[in-house]
Amino acid sequence: MRDVAIIGVGVTKFGENWNDSFRSIEIEAGMKAIADANLYGSEIDGLFIGNMSAGRFINQKHIDALIADYSGMATRNVPATRVEAGGASGGVAFGQAVMAVASGLHNTVLVGGAEKMTDQDDSSINNAMDATADAEWEAGMGLTLASLYAMIARRVIYEGIATREEIASVAVNSHFHGALNPAAQFKKAVPLETVLKSSPVAEPLGMFDCAPVSDGAAAVVLCPLDEAKKHTDSYVKVASFAQGSDTLALFQRDSITSFGATVTAARKAYEWAGIRASDISVAEIHDDYSIAGILALQDLGLYKKGEAGKAFLNGETRIGEGKVAVNTSGGLKARGYPIGASGVAQIVEIAEQMRGRADKRQVKDPKYGLAQSVGGTGSAVTVSILEAV
Amino acid sequence: MRDVAIIGVGVTKFGENWNDSFRSIEIEAGMKAIADANLYGSEIDGLFIGNMSAGRFINQKHIDALIADYSGMATRNVPATRVEAGGASGGVAFGQAVMAVASGLHNTVLVGGAEKMTDQDDSSINNAMDATADAEWEAGMGLTLASLYAMIARRVIYEGIATREEIASVAVNSHFHGALNPAAQFKKAVPLETVLKSSPVAEPLGMFDCAPVSDGAAAVVLCPLDEAKKHTDSYVKVASFAQGSDTLALFQRDSITSFGATVTAARKAYEWAGIRASDISVAEIHDDYSIAGILALQDLGLYKKGEAGKAFLNGETRIGEGKVAVNTSGGLKARGYPIGASGVAQIVEIAEQMRGRADKRQVKDPKYGLAQSVGGTGSAVTVSILEAV
Repeated sequence: MRDVAIIGVGVTKFGENWNDSFRSIEIEAGMKAIADANLYGSEIDGLFIGNMSAGRFINQKHIDALIADYSGMATRNVPATRVEAGGASGGVAFGQAVMAVASGLHNTVLVGGAEKMTDQDDSSINNAMDATADAEWEAGMGLTLASLYAMIARRVIYEGIATREEIASVAVNSHFHGALNPAAQFKKAVPLETVLKSSPVAEPLGMFDCAPVSDGAAAVVLCPLDEAKKHTDSYVKVASFAQGSDTLALFQRDSITSFGATVTAARKAYEWAGIRASDISVAEIHDDYSIAGILALQDLGLYKKGEAGKAFLNGETRIGEGKVAVNTSGGLKARGYPIGASGVAQIVEIAEQMRGRADKRQVKDPKYGLAQSVGGTGSAVTVSILEAV
Repeated sequence: MRDVAIIGVGVTKFGENWNDSFRSIEIEAGMKAIADANLYGSEIDGLFIGNMSAGRFINQKHIDALIADYSGMATRNVPATRVEAGGASGGVAFGQAVMAVASGLHNTVLVGGAEKMTDQDDSSINNAMDATADAEWEAGMGLTLASLYAMIARRVIYEGIATREEIASVAVNSHFHGALNPAAQFKKAVPLETVLKSSPVAEPLGMFDCAPVSDGAAAVVLCPLDEAKKHTDSYVKVASFAQGSDTLALFQRDSITSFGATVTAARKAYEWAGIRASDISVAEIHDDYSIAGILALQDLGLYKKGEAGKAFLNGETRIGEGKVAVNTSGGLKARGYPIGASGVAQIVEIAEQMRGRADKRQVKDPKYGLAQSVGGTGSAVTVSILEAV
């Protein structure tokens, strides 16, 4: 396999983009990424797209063809592939694109993710989210994704792995960084009290423990590492990518205070990159619910079990404060959570960190950064590691 | 890239499988393929799944995790990836799986396709199908997929490329072969008159010009070609795979009597395999509407423009009659059309032909076989070529 590089990134504003269509945001992100890579669109020979629910939200399946069409690449019949893995859709699309370039089957690939959600009614959004849990044994019984994560939170508290305050601190951390990100949906820091006192969603989780409903798109351009310099001086090496699955339903797991898919994917990703968890200095993790952030840091090996919560609470996870800066983009909680875009947006943030272009959010001289994307309650997890060159 | 082999195949009965769930049919096909490959499930290290509409049909997204879960592979966190490309979902899943093994990222991969449709009401099915056309410029205006293909048929007749009778003969050919396939939904040959006189759907197309609504699943197991012999004496080489896109909406094309995505994908597939169209002796083509069969044979270079219709009408496309046997499985029309399964089921049929296991449908000593899968009105097309070894 060939080594792969990221040579361009693009992202739209995340939030309530009521004046933009699904088509326009996806193209905006893609065109930004292509321009950032100093390419013409005609140099792209493959497209990969992560999207969860355009079929339900805008009555449009076949997003592969839609993107090829509206980017003008359909006139050259450029192959386009849409993947879906619930919340991990963007992460999986990135992985497929890396594989396409690494294999030699494609050379210069655009990978995008997009979701348009804020013009949907609540039941449509909730139905789509809950369809990433087990339809027969969970959602069909009335369980929502929020209530499943609430069960995990209760168990985490019961086992003494983290306190309620520590769990809430995951959201505080994301909002702290979101305030530094002009493209974030919520650009405001919030105190711990605000999270703890927010309206209950599924106890112990309140509204501020849950990522928002968002519109947005993100894109990156990949090419073989040894061709990157031809296009730009500012590129990033894809050090590794790994993916894991788990049972759809929580009750089938041995433990619900750890996601096996994260543990397995992280182990493979570190191995492929030839590094250890301690080499990571910036990480984007999937905090769709605050509790997921506790599990993520522990399952990724960035903190020992029982210590991730403390790190969030005492501010160690903020830029410049500890060994690894977490969710410098604002994470899903504050940057926003357009589902299919999320995994790709994480890659954009880590790539910008590796290139030293993260402005007020810049981590000092990072060598390795990591992105973790999660579908359902850890039923699919991707872990990508990027390396500064 | 490494050469890739198919070492096992599995398929369920296609039809109205009211006693089976989506979960059970997918697992049935997968387990058959794994058994056929003389493997244990524990030897599989990657899963790829083609599915169009489980989110809509059974309220279950995240089919990747569902399959990993119910096949027992989630306990090992085996990576699972779901792709969707309308009618080409299965074809694209096969391509991603080939890429995974060719790249070396995976070694032994199961690729499946499934759809459970017959317990849906008509409007749910039609909405899902129409969502593979352009939601804003076609489906949103009231155009159905059938009416779009009817427009193509009208234009084909107008341009003198094929007559109404020749178009209807595509269905006659599929039914002729379906009668020889015990796993087909319709095991009955029909005369031309039956197709011509069937109830109008979108004129000139009648009910017998349209593939049925079906339940079913199909699966194949892939491994590196140089490891195939370890598992089985009866394996098939994947000679090539290629994929093309086109505009979502028909009105944006220069021509609607040819699918550019097929032309481009076929050219690449022949080139990669190092063969010419005339080397193909058996082909599975995407006859979701009869007219698509005319376009397929011409765009694949198997017949010149204006000659495919004649070949269907005079029976040249039947086993043993002409240079290439077309849709020996019964095609989408008679074998059945569980959408996400279809592209994988085509691969199963061609692989069985290459292994000499197609019973009454067996083509004599085939060297190369081809499968073409189509999404929407040619907005995504995959072409796979298999080689007997």
